[in-house]
Amino acid sequence: VKLGIGDDAAVLAPAGADSLVWTSDACVEGVHFDSKWLGSADVGFRSLQAAASDVAAMGARPLAALSNLILPASFGKAELSALARGQAEASRALGCPVVGGNLSRGAELSITTTVLGTCRQPLVRSGARPGDELWLVGDVGLAAAGLELLRAGIASRSRAAARCIRAWRRPVALVRTGMTLARYARAALDVSDGLRADAPRLADASGVRVIIEEAAFTKALDPALTSVARVLRVSPVELALTGGEDYALLAAGPSGTRPRSAQRIGRIERGRAAWFERADGQRLRLSGGFDHLSRE
Amino acid sequence: VKLGIGDDAAVLAPAGADSLVWTSDACVEGVHFDSKWLGSADVGFRSLQAAASDVAAMGARPLAALSNLILPASFGKAELSALARGQAEASRALGCPVVGGNLSRGAELSITTTVLGTCRQPLVRSGARPGDELWLVGDVGLAAAGLELLRAGIASRSRAAARCIRAWRRPVALVRTGMTLARYARAALDVSDGLRADAPRLADASGVRVIIEEAAFTKALDPALTSVARVLRVSPVELALTGGEDYALLAAGPSGTRPRSAQRIGRIERGRAAWFERADGQRLRLSGGFDHLSRE
Repeated sequence: VKLGIGDDAAVLAPAGADSLVWTSDACVEGVHFDSKWLGSADVGFRSLQAAASDVAAMGARPLAALSNLILPASFGKAELSALARGQAEASRALGCPVVGGNLSRGAELSITTTVLGTCRQPLVRSGARPGDELWLVGDVGLAAAGLELLRAGIASRSRAAARCIRAWRRPVALVRTGMTLARYARAALDVSDGLRADAPRLADASGVRVIIEEAAFTKALDPALTSVARVLRVSPVELALTGGEDYALLAAGPSGTRPRSAQRIGRIERGRAAWFERADGQRLRLSGGFDHLSRE
Repeated sequence: VKLGIGDDAAVLAPAGADSLVWTSDACVEGVHFDSKWLGSADVGFRSLQAAASDVAAMGARPLAALSNLILPASFGKAELSALARGQAEASRALGCPVVGGNLSRGAELSITTTVLGTCRQPLVRSGARPGDELWLVGDVGLAAAGLELLRAGIASRSRAAARCIRAWRRPVALVRTGMTLARYARAALDVSDGLRADAPRLADASGVRVIIEEAAFTKALDPALTSVARVLRVSPVELALTGGEDYALLAAGPSGTRPRSAQRIGRIERGRAAWFERADGQRLRLSGGFDHLSRE
C-alpha cells in the first residue's frame, strides 16, 4: 500500500506478475444481520471477514480493504469505535489493512467492504470436471446453529453452544487454506448462503452435476453441530445444508490431490444441478436458499 | 479485466509498473441525493461518475468498477433497469466497465461504487508548495445552481438553466484533464463537497495556506452560473464557493507550467487554512461545508 486514508483514493503498489482479485460485500442491518445478538465490534469483525472470504475462495491473499459505512443517527460514537475495533481485529488477523473508505448518514446501518487481493492463478467456480471429488474446507452449519440458539433464547453453557455462537459472531475467512486449495483444486467458491444455495452455483458455473453424499457429508460435520442440533431438535444435516455465514469453502478437484485441510463430501458427475444423495440412493435436488432480493 | 461478474471476485490483469488507484463512494437517497428531481438513470450515472472523480483527481485512468446496490422493496424492476442503464452510460463514457457487485435489500436506496484505476505517478493532495499557483479545472457552482432551480420550482427554459440542471443530474468526472494535470500539477483533489470544504483539505494535506483571489475566481466562473444566480437572487461567488457535486478539480502547481485546461484562481502561501481574498484585500476564512455526519 503506497497511500492509504487521507487522499481521494488508495494507491497500491503494482503486484508484479500476479493477478489482482477484487470483491465487494454489503452487510445491512435487519437483512444480513440482527443487532439484537451482535455487538458493534462483531458487526465490524464479520463484515471484513465476509468480504475477505470471497478473496479466500479465489485462492488469493487479501492485500487491503476499503470500508463504506452508512450510519443511522442513533448509532453513537461508542458504537462506531466498537465497530472500528472489530474491523481492526479482523484486519490484523487477516493481514489486510483498511486503507480507505467513507462515512455517510442513512436510515439504517450498513457496511460495504471492498477487498483487493492477489494470487498467481485465481481459483474460479467454473473449473470442476466430471470425475472430480467434491471437497469441503472448514465447517458448515455452525453459524446457523449459533444464531438459532440465540433466537430461541436457549442459555446453554456447553462448549458446543459457545463454539456455534462464536462461529456466527466471529466467522473467519479461510485465507491460508484457500491458498493451499488453489494449488490442488480445479474450482471453488465460499459457502456464504448455505450449501443448498451455493452447491448449485458451482454446478452451474462448471456445467456439471454436483453430488453431496450423505454418508461422507455426515462424517464431515463438526461434533459441536450434532450436539447443538440435538438441543435445537433439528437435524444437523438440515442445518449444515441450509445454514450460511460460516464461510467454508466448497471445492472440486481430482482424487489423489486432496489437501489435508479438505474433506471429501461427494463427487462431480456429468449432468447438471446439485443433489443430496441419501444413503439409500435417493437424490434430493438442492435449490433456493437465501436470496436477499426475494422474500421467503 | 480477466474475470468479471459471476465469480466470487473480479480479477484484474496486473498493471505493470503503474500504481493502482482505488476508491469507494456511497450515494444514499435522502442524504446524497433526492429522487424527487433525479430519475433512476441519473442516480446510476452520477454514482459511477462521483466515484470515478476520485480516481480522476489522482491523475489516474479508471480501469473497472464494482457496484453495490441496496434497494428498498418499493424500488421496482423498471427503476432497477433504468439505474443500470445510467450506470452503463457512465461506464461507456468513462471507459470503465462495471465488473462486479452485489444486490441487497434494505430500507433505503444506496449505491456504493468502488473504482480501481491506474497511473504512472499518483497526484496527491499533499504536494502543494508556497509560491505555487492555485488552479481550477472544470466548473464549480453549476450543480448547486441546478439543484436550487429545481427546489425553487423555477421553470426556466434558458440554456443557462438547462446547463446547470444537467451539471447536477449528469456530472462528468474529469478523467482526461486529470491525467494531463498529473503531468504539471504538484497536488490536486476533486471538489465534491464545495470549495469551502475542499480548499481547506488541500491546505491541511499540504501544510500550506490556500488563497482564492476574488478577481481571478470571478473571471473563472461560467456565464451560465452568473445568469442562473441572478434568477435565484443569490451571489454567483457564494454558489461557486459552497456548491458541491460538480466534480471540478482543485490543483496547485508552479506558475508557467499550467495546462490550458486549468484556470488560475489564486495562489499558495506559507501558512495554513484556506482563505477567500476579496478585491479590497480582506480575507474570509473558508471552512465547514457539507459534512454528512453532522446536522447543519
